[in-house]
Amino acid sequence: MPFHDRATFPRGFRCASINVGLKPVERDLSIFESEVDAAAAAVFTRNHFPGAPIILGRETIRAGCLRAIVVNSKCSNVATGPQGLANARRMAAAAAAALNTTSDKVLVSSTGVIGVQLAIEKIEHGLRGIAAHFGDDPLVGAAGIMTTDTYPKAHSASAGAATITWVAKGSGMIEPNMATMLAYVFTDAAIDARALDRMLRVAVDASFNMLSVDTDTSTSDTCAILANGLAGPVDEEEFQRVLTEGCVLMTEKLARDGEGAMHLLRVRVREALNDVEARRIAKSVVNSPLIKTMVHGADPNVGRILMAVGKCTDCTIAPARADAWINGFAVVRGGARLDFDEGAVRTALADEVVELVVALGVGSSSATAWGCDLTKGYIDENASYYSS
Amino acid sequence: MPFHDRATFPRGFRCASINVGLKPVERDLSIFESEVDAAAAAVFTRNHFPGAPIILGRETIRAGCLRAIVVNSKCSNVATGPQGLANARRMAAAAAAALNTTSDKVLVSSTGVIGVQLAIEKIEHGLRGIAAHFGDDPLVGAAGIMTTDTYPKAHSASAGAATITWVAKGSGMIEPNMATMLAYVFTDAAIDARALDRMLRVAVDASFNMLSVDTDTSTSDTCAILANGLAGPVDEEEFQRVLTEGCVLMTEKLARDGEGAMHLLRVRVREALNDVEARRIAKSVVNSPLIKTMVHGADPNVGRILMAVGKCTDCTIAPARADAWINGFAVVRGGARLDFDEGAVRTALADEVVELVVALGVGSSSATAWGCDLTKGYIDENASYYSS
Repeated sequence: MPFHDRATFPRGFRCASINVGLKPVERDLSIFESEVDAAAAAVFTRNHFPGAPIILGRETIRAGCLRAIVVNSKCSNVATGPQGLANARRMAAAAAAALNTTSDKVLVSSTGVIGVQLAIEKIEHGLRGIAAHFGDDPLVGAAGIMTTDTYPKAHSASAGAATITWVAKGSGMIEPNMATMLAYVFTDAAIDARALDRMLRVAVDASFNMLSVDTDTSTSDTCAILANGLAGPVDEEEFQRVLTEGCVLMTEKLARDGEGAMHLLRVRVREALNDVEARRIAKSVVNSPLIKTMVHGADPNVGRILMAVGKCTDCTIAPARADAWINGFAVVRGGARLDFDEGAVRTALADEVVELVVALGVGSSSATAWGCDLTKGYIDENASYYSS
Repeated sequence: MPFHDRATFPRGFRCASINVGLKPVERDLSIFESEVDAAAAAVFTRNHFPGAPIILGRETIRAGCLRAIVVNSKCSNVATGPQGLANARRMAAAAAAALNTTSDKVLVSSTGVIGVQLAIEKIEHGLRGIAAHFGDDPLVGAAGIMTTDTYPKAHSASAGAATITWVAKGSGMIEPNMATMLAYVFTDAAIDARALDRMLRVAVDASFNMLSVDTDTSTSDTCAILANGLAGPVDEEEFQRVLTEGCVLMTEKLARDGEGAMHLLRVRVREALNDVEARRIAKSVVNSPLIKTMVHGADPNVGRILMAVGKCTDCTIAPARADAWINGFAVVRGGARLDFDEGAVRTALADEVVELVVALGVGSSSATAWGCDLTKGYIDENASYYSS
């Protein structure tokens, strides 16, 4: 396993996280910095109403070079018009001034409620003194970007002589179409921006793009990678493998901590006609409210698996060839419910990780999607998110 | 208004509903009969794993002639293999024997849990004595087809000299792709099967096909219409208008009684590029868990409307031209949140009926979708549906 016991930064990276007054007392502003220019790539939400930081970020990332990422939580700076874009630019400029760099090398992210203007003066004021707070613990930076997450998320791994470190937040409004809500990857490997971009897309496609907490695609999704080269060149194949593995691990962490989630739901579709259909069917099952409540209640209502596969009306499905398993127990064969041991399946469904496998028998493509159960906690969280 | 104060049957129709032992004591079997052969049409679920009654029903409806519809609740006869299909045929034969007709003129429906074999002997036994129970109240027939519905649903209207009567059930696993879970329409108008089929599809497309409680498409969805001609010919245009209106009214009843629902959510999309995009965007908003919880909590988190519109990545959307209203209050203009009266919007969101209007400014197509809020009641209902 290339993963470390404790998240650490690659050479030349550090972070700081403070409270600037957007939240009552918790950390609400994080900054991640490389001591030298880093090659960089990023993918952003495909939502038609991207936040101001996304509009600015698409411009910033074009040069393929970053020194820092600055992120605030509590307010997403979305649906805020020209003033919102001006505030995002001010945030980049304030971070650049604090770090003695230029604002075109600072990626800005904001996460939180939509439709409220950023308290930019508080952020500018906080950034002025941020340099005093730099440290080497990625979890501290992860804490400052949380919204409804219940714990900060970071991990690191080795790829040859290089280190790769992931920092992310998730929780709700999660069905990324390019990346998860906010995920940052830092490495000291020497890789140019073009290769980074290619490798990031491969990794994201197999991980964050197959994650869904609630089918709702955020207007702020961002996944960025910075490679500052301090560890020298790496084997690209190994780097890609570790990069993807780390993104999958972060995807599972985000699913597990989905709003109200009590179970990680992993859906593996096999023997689909092609990749597109495998992915669509896996997403359909992982997103089905009736599957999610079945997992929540540990209720072996396995016919719902067929329902959720079968509602993909445009996909190729041969009902008599469909088999399904729940945590290893065969529950459907040839499109009909098997006479399985209900007590055992009920116990399996009560595991923290529930894996549904569906074999379609119509091809050789596979896909895995990640999600979570649907609970009253999700409703509590979202019935008053704006007001609380 | 063509609607009657109290649901009544058209000439020549009647129904019966009894308990045959599938449920402990409630009615679990209903039969609807025309005293003469009726022209008939039906649309069924597009789910790839249709129940046995759907497979049989597609065969039965081909001749365009029915005498009766027999429906049981509690067990859907889905994912039950060859034995399930044999049981559906036995159910048609038993109903035909009781009514002195042939089984090719009996449409069978089953609704309830998936993956369990039908207790066909109980149904056959019950059908033997059913003739003694016939009456003229459509609500009695509606009661026998309920699953998690909280009340039986039927209404009737006049179209010229003819009467049209709708009987339906809904509640969960509701995003019909051809019709809602189970909806039956009876009329004494004289209309041939071909015209009926055409008119039914028009009505269903503007009503049941725009309904979603939870995005989950049932394996049993059926909407059938019977026209026994006893009232003679009608004006087709008027008939179509009343037929569609009645289907929309039933759609709103089904949305209102969605599992756990406390609000009817109506989403009107205007000025879309074309009909397909108008429908897709309306469905995206009505299905968004974050919109549904916002309505549930009467929380004016209106940025979520933009999120749910914007996640239709394949649709044509000009962010700066998007406006939105909540029960008449303007909340978004030109893609940005307006500075609206929060107290007033909060009060509007607490209405039993919440209507969201989105104007896209990119074309002239409209669509309306119906749904409901997402509550803890939905989770209670579905976390143990199989076991309870």
